[in-house]
Amino acid sequence: MNDKKNESITSRDVDFAKWYTDVVRAARLADYSNVKGCTVFEPNGTALWEKIQKILDDMFKETGHQNVMMPLLIPEGLMKKEGELIEGFAPEVAWVTMGGSKQLEERLCIRPTSETLFSDYYSTVVNSYRDLPLKYNQWCNVMRWEKETRPFLRTREFFWQEGHTVHSTSEEAEKETHDMLETYRTFFEKYLAIPVIAGKKTEKEKFAGAEYTLTIEALMYNGISLQSATSHYFGQKFSKAYDIKFLNKEGKLEYAYQTSWGSTTRMIGALIMVHGDDNGLILPPRIAPKQVVIVGIGKNEEIVNEAVATCYNKLKEAGISVYIDSSDKTPGFKFAEAEVNGIPVRLEIGKRDLTNNKITVARRDTREKVLFDYDDTLVENIKNLLEDIQNNMFNKAKERMESLTFEAKTFKDVEKIMNEHPGFVHASWCGDQDCELKMKEIRGTKSRCIMETYEGNHNHKCVVCGKKAKHNVVWGIQY
Amino acid sequence: MNDKKNESITSRDVDFAKWYTDVVRAARLADYSNVKGCTVFEPNGTALWEKIQKILDDMFKETGHQNVMMPLLIPEGLMKKEGELIEGFAPEVAWVTMGGSKQLEERLCIRPTSETLFSDYYSTVVNSYRDLPLKYNQWCNVMRWEKETRPFLRTREFFWQEGHTVHSTSEEAEKETHDMLETYRTFFEKYLAIPVIAGKKTEKEKFAGAEYTLTIEALMYNGISLQSATSHYFGQKFSKAYDIKFLNKEGKLEYAYQTSWGSTTRMIGALIMVHGDDNGLILPPRIAPKQVVIVGIGKNEEIVNEAVATCYNKLKEAGISVYIDSSDKTPGFKFAEAEVNGIPVRLEIGKRDLTNNKITVARRDTREKVLFDYDDTLVENIKNLLEDIQNNMFNKAKERMESLTFEAKTFKDVEKIMNEHPGFVHASWCGDQDCELKMKEIRGTKSRCIMETYEGNHNHKCVVCGKKAKHNVVWGIQY
Repeated sequence: MNDKKNESITSRDVDFAKWYTDVVRAARLADYSNVKGCTVFEPNGTALWEKIQKILDDMFKETGHQNVMMPLLIPEGLMKKEGELIEGFAPEVAWVTMGGSKQLEERLCIRPTSETLFSDYYSTVVNSYRDLPLKYNQWCNVMRWEKETRPFLRTREFFWQEGHTVHSTSEEAEKETHDMLETYRTFFEKYLAIPVIAGKKTEKEKFAGAEYTLTIEALMYNGISLQSATSHYFGQKFSKAYDIKFLNKEGKLEYAYQTSWGSTTRMIGALIMVHGDDNGLILPPRIAPKQVVIVGIGKNEEIVNEAVATCYNKLKEAGISVYIDSSDKTPGFKFAEAEVNGIPVRLEIGKRDLTNNKITVARRDTREKVLFDYDDTLVENIKNLLEDIQNNMFNKAKERMESLTFEAKTFKDVEKIMNEHPGFVHASWCGDQDCELKMKEIRGTKSRCIMETYEGNHNHKCVVCGKKAKHNVVWGIQY
Repeated sequence: MNDKKNESITSRDVDFAKWYTDVVRAARLADYSNVKGCTVFEPNGTALWEKIQKILDDMFKETGHQNVMMPLLIPEGLMKKEGELIEGFAPEVAWVTMGGSKQLEERLCIRPTSETLFSDYYSTVVNSYRDLPLKYNQWCNVMRWEKETRPFLRTREFFWQEGHTVHSTSEEAEKETHDMLETYRTFFEKYLAIPVIAGKKTEKEKFAGAEYTLTIEALMYNGISLQSATSHYFGQKFSKAYDIKFLNKEGKLEYAYQTSWGSTTRMIGALIMVHGDDNGLILPPRIAPKQVVIVGIGKNEEIVNEAVATCYNKLKEAGISVYIDSSDKTPGFKFAEAEVNGIPVRLEIGKRDLTNNKITVARRDTREKVLFDYDDTLVENIKNLLEDIQNNMFNKAKERMESLTFEAKTFKDVEKIMNEHPGFVHASWCGDQDCELKMKEIRGTKSRCIMETYEGNHNHKCVVCGKKAKHNVVWGIQY
């Protein structure tokens, strides 16, 4: 380790991909492992995921969801009951074929997603409309045998939550589908400080087996889009395949209505790529496992040690997550390390400031330093500063997203935009899959989501074929 | 569902095994799945596991441990680097041999435990004594291809935490091994209200690859022993196999010293089998996800509804985990359901009591009902009651354990005890594995742990061969 830790990070404007992996390593979020396509989540990455889990989990529970834990493995026969799902996932599942030294009679796949297991379980416990709704969620690991992998964004094993609900009416299930998308949007904007756009996926991009898929999409600093969380309405597709029937109020047997919705460790990738800079990670205060670091300057100065302890205790009492860096590194090293790790606020407590009843406070987002009074106002001022950082980070990300959001009338417009600087491109579309595929020729541009479906008389033309358009779609280049 | 839910539970004195699975199902802890040997953790079982996780996790973090997340899969080559470990686990691992439609070049096993992955990671990040100690833990699923399975006690997939630490001295690593065993003992006694005995495993029973294994062992209601948590000292065995070297203070390269320690969802099985009765689960208040249930008696009685809401708010404010059963079931059904689910305290709020400023309070452990004043003393009285239940449950379990703890001087003594009523049997042992194996002939009796190693002059004789004994060992029949 060198004294100026930040120098190990490539500039984000020089090589964004290299910058990303440099930050992942320098902030000790994750490390590569000897298992191809799988990463080790180091303490900082794990703490961040735990914080994300805690907040989202509370939001789910407040809206009546309960956690369960389903098996890791799915027998092939069970997996195949719903045709579209297995077709979508077959090329990318890992198969267990041996238990100990014995060949298995039926091979089992490691879950790529758990609709099959939830549906199988629901078919045994759902009998009457009185049993409904069932609103379950699980936090777990899943596996998809990806070829190209990148920490957090695309890995063979990843961690996520998957909600699976069963309802007695389509209205209630559709409401759930939309409500959960709103939960994700709120979480992204309020906690991750990441603005998103929300809409419906096209037929081509929807989840295998869903009636439709809703999505939130975020834009990274470099203008690349990231599908950030999705919510699916299944109608009766799975209930028919897995025989989930209930006696309705009229005493008739009816197939149930289902949803599922998920968000993954990919969110950590979004945090890095929306907020990070050349000095490393920048964490929004509401999601930062540690919000404030205290660095005492000058060893064995009683006045400094006392102030460090006092600040620590007062901040902790006030519910702020704080730690003291009491290692034997130099102050400069400690500052750099806290910056790399994205700690929102740093207190630098030194003798000279203290004699003036001041403390130097550095904010990570702007890297500004200010002097706060070392008195009764300190805790309140730091609370306000944390709020200010949270808001500032969201506004900055929103401005960036808006500055990289474009309108296109023609195919050439899209080409020009994507070649100059990619971003979110609004363009009308006729609904024809050939036109959607044609867009891929422009650096792999794909539909992100349908923002609006035109009704009545209008003059919108498809950006590809020029025929009458059906939808206003946002297009982008994706991770 | 019938109105007297408890009648679905077999008496525990008639058929303990059947009673156990009846309670698991009736309390909605877990369900069998279509994946052989794997269970579905239902909401009540999952909530219980989350509560266990939260408390243990806080205990780990308070003592300087950090969480990480390692990959699920282990390449065969990496797994084989430590000879004893793979020998111990090879017969019971599941192998992934295909990714998508492609045969893998090297097969991967689903982790049965993660010493190999942690050691591989440590070999890349440990360089100097300044990097040490590293005290990491992970909460995850693991898989062992068991033939006979039973919910929570032995399943192919199970959930656990596994701590893995690296130290620069053997003293520090051995201290960690003992400290973590004490953490488990504290957790069992203080939170789960389960008394345990603690000691060292014999060579035959220790963890594959460990220098030695420490264990806590609990006794179920039926006198069967349950290995409840273990802590292993590895010395330099894994560091030599995985090349974890560090520069010590003298500037010399040295192999590091390691430990690992784990506890599993089996703890839920212990809770059921130590505390449960013929009416279902009984949860100690400190581990109960819901400590108090409120049942209002008499529909649409304003005075009842008001008191229900007031009690709920007051208890919640006081930090007690409380819920109102506001379903349209009968009070009798609600009482039975709360009993099956093991809720420690039930408030029955009815008009007649209220007019006397009273509330009926039922405690789950003794099933006694008492009248509490409905005034300012209520919350304090309920807090005290919860404490009393916690203590009473521990004392009752301790008395049971003590009444089923025996001393044996001869092999015949052991036979007599184990045939009459199994329990913990103290008996001296010469240390010879043949004698240990001979004990298995008595209903599968195994050594639980070494309680004491005799020193100096003594007259203790081996319970099997009659030769001079080395250890005082507790023996038992195990799950």
